[in-house]
Amino acid sequence: MTQHFDFISIGGGSGGIASANRAAKLGKKAAVIEAKYVGGTCVNVGCVPKKAMWYAGQIADAMKYAADYGFDIEQKGLNWEKLVSNRQAYIERIHASYNRGFANNGVTLINGFAKFKDAHTVEVNGTLYTADHIVIATGGRPSIPNISGAELGITSDGFFELNEQPKSVAVIGAGYIAVELAGVMHALGSETHLVVRKDKPLRDFDDLMSDTLVDVMKEEGPKLHTHSTPKAIEKCSSGELIVQFENGQSLPPVECVIWAIGRAPAVDNINLEAAGVKLDEKGFIATDEYQNTNVQGIYAVGDNTGRIALTPVAVAAGRRLCERLFNGKSDLKLDYNNVATVVFSHPPIGTVGLTEIQAKEAFGEGAVKVYTSQFTALYQAMTQHRQPTKMKLVCVGPEEKIVGIHSIGFGSDELLQGFAVALKMGATKADFDNTVAIHPTSAEEFVTM
Amino acid sequence: MTQHFDFISIGGGSGGIASANRAAKLGKKAAVIEAKYVGGTCVNVGCVPKKAMWYAGQIADAMKYAADYGFDIEQKGLNWEKLVSNRQAYIERIHASYNRGFANNGVTLINGFAKFKDAHTVEVNGTLYTADHIVIATGGRPSIPNISGAELGITSDGFFELNEQPKSVAVIGAGYIAVELAGVMHALGSETHLVVRKDKPLRDFDDLMSDTLVDVMKEEGPKLHTHSTPKAIEKCSSGELIVQFENGQSLPPVECVIWAIGRAPAVDNINLEAAGVKLDEKGFIATDEYQNTNVQGIYAVGDNTGRIALTPVAVAAGRRLCERLFNGKSDLKLDYNNVATVVFSHPPIGTVGLTEIQAKEAFGEGAVKVYTSQFTALYQAMTQHRQPTKMKLVCVGPEEKIVGIHSIGFGSDELLQGFAVALKMGATKADFDNTVAIHPTSAEEFVTM
Repeated sequence: MTQHFDFISIGGGSGGIASANRAAKLGKKAAVIEAKYVGGTCVNVGCVPKKAMWYAGQIADAMKYAADYGFDIEQKGLNWEKLVSNRQAYIERIHASYNRGFANNGVTLINGFAKFKDAHTVEVNGTLYTADHIVIATGGRPSIPNISGAELGITSDGFFELNEQPKSVAVIGAGYIAVELAGVMHALGSETHLVVRKDKPLRDFDDLMSDTLVDVMKEEGPKLHTHSTPKAIEKCSSGELIVQFENGQSLPPVECVIWAIGRAPAVDNINLEAAGVKLDEKGFIATDEYQNTNVQGIYAVGDNTGRIALTPVAVAAGRRLCERLFNGKSDLKLDYNNVATVVFSHPPIGTVGLTEIQAKEAFGEGAVKVYTSQFTALYQAMTQHRQPTKMKLVCVGPEEKIVGIHSIGFGSDELLQGFAVALKMGATKADFDNTVAIHPTSAEEFVTM
Repeated sequence: MTQHFDFISIGGGSGGIASANRAAKLGKKAAVIEAKYVGGTCVNVGCVPKKAMWYAGQIADAMKYAADYGFDIEQKGLNWEKLVSNRQAYIERIHASYNRGFANNGVTLINGFAKFKDAHTVEVNGTLYTADHIVIATGGRPSIPNISGAELGITSDGFFELNEQPKSVAVIGAGYIAVELAGVMHALGSETHLVVRKDKPLRDFDDLMSDTLVDVMKEEGPKLHTHSTPKAIEKCSSGELIVQFENGQSLPPVECVIWAIGRAPAVDNINLEAAGVKLDEKGFIATDEYQNTNVQGIYAVGDNTGRIALTPVAVAAGRRLCERLFNGKSDLKLDYNNVATVVFSHPPIGTVGLTEIQAKEAFGEGAVKVYTSQFTALYQAMTQHRQPTKMKLVCVGPEEKIVGIHSIGFGSDELLQGFAVALKMGATKADFDNTVAIHPTSAEEFVTM
């Protein structure tokens, strides 16, 4: 028995769901094959539970600020199990919502692990499925380094399985996942170490962002360990873990080590060879700007393509692919430039476009003009717990075209999206100046610089 | 002794401060005359203390949500005096910052009440000051109705003087000030009544905003009394106040009645007649689009002009005026269209441009297309206290030009400013669609509709 579809997505994460739903809405017979939970990394072990934990951290902050707002409260502890259980209940509701979406759109959900048989056929639990168009949307998985004792640590996947709050934790990595997990654990009261190989985390971000984050860490924690490359992890007799560095130093014992050193494409078990799909030199699926692989009728979207590994990017790429395939929009493709992103650090960072350094490299030092602003958000200014908010506009040329927008501080999460629209539209500094401010907000600083 | 300036601002609120600083930065000898505190309504009895109180309400909300995030806390009460004292300390720091700004820019601050002697001369405490250019930036003050017992109530000015939290309060009015004060008092635990003359508050806002706010009030409070026009206030023997309505009904006794029925221009004591400055039929200072009054060399900005009564509007008008007068930008003026605003209600509302009804009136029913979105923000979705977030894009014509952006729900305060830039730039729905979303945020819904 072989079942035929117009469109199959291998992988039921953000990219696979969005593309299959779009294909079905365009009248195509579509299926999603998923071995675990629908929603993929984002819903199950990424954006969603991460942000739920971040909000828990925000509430911990609010309770810290409460005294200065006149509230008399006594904190008696954190029931980690309840936090996790409510978080998972929320995720279950998202699963249900995805399933309702599939039902409404007529998308078939196939539970199981897909393996290619040939370029138009996959096998799931012994059943064969064929499709005119197959999108590979298998995402990625966290990497673990090849050092002694590495297996004593967990990854972000393991973090979301923790049923107890570790009293102490070392997060190893310098990217946004490391920064977010360390920020959450610190906010929730664990003794937290953040370990980076070079001089600071978020080195790809504008220096104003990463430097300010480091300043806040120095003031409030977590404890940042720079120039520290793990060499081995050892377990003490107490059961605690000791991370040893190549420079001969080591961390104090911690209950939990979290690897957040990067993610690899999840493409090694789906028998790509049978379809003849080629990988690039880094092991990601090689795609052109239209998401085509080297094989006619096979495409890839999302984290396994090695492009920007963000949910909305996978969603946007998948939807555009299906509009191209099934709705006559033969030139439609995703523009991977100027994708905005938010790091849910403490405080959060919002950023879109070029850093100051990137702009100077691209346009020349003399062509770049930078505007910055620094203040304490009103929320914290009322309290003894003042965090800096710092913002930067990177402008280019005599018309001061805005090529980069960067903000760190309370509110930087929600304020960015609209500015990202303006940047995408080609906004100049004058367009910002022409817009009347909204007072009192943090966002208004971008139009009053 | 007469002291001469290039530029004098009568009034040291947002508009007066911004224009005098700009004049001074442009090399002019500038003065600000202020009888009370620098900062005017905004800093002292408006935006700033209001938002501080709103954040207190947000913290009260956070403590309500805390249990579902696993926190075990005991709330022992609110020390109103401490809240007010920290709020006022913050305001003192703003005063100091304004004074530093004046000192840096070389602006002279004159303490006292100004009265015109002639079109180029004002008198303050017996001293005469002349100027080539005088801007009237005296702002406004809250209105009190002419009914029996009206004086038993206070206004927003009085609200910010409260040294004790009233256990029960009636806020009378349907505009944003009424909604904000009622929302704060309810969030902080006072038994709160909001009294409006017609069917709902915020009737000038898009219906999706006002209707959703009413829905949340029904669910959570404060208690909304519609079709209720106060006829009289009486004091009981207990000292409590009873608000009687024209329809024969009345409110239960409350400790405090707050009038928030509108604001009038503060122009009646500055001897405008001596300068020959004319008022419009509503009693505001009559100005043209360049902020000119009928008298050469006299201008007006801000709330006393009867235009949009918002701090950033006064600031923008004042700065543009000085750029026009002193920097050769002879055509510069403020565009009063598409000014964005945020109501710090519970939940907050952000809005810019036309409501759906206004757009249909302006462009015809058939030319308007509306996109809406409804969801529960992640922050609250984790809890039992779910508030709706609702958003609306109002688009016009075949190109779907965006003429209105409306959002109610958690995060609607910070997300709006950037979208306001995009709208001012002439954004179409396609510009929004072309921008990749930032996940998970509330703001992303505007680019994924």
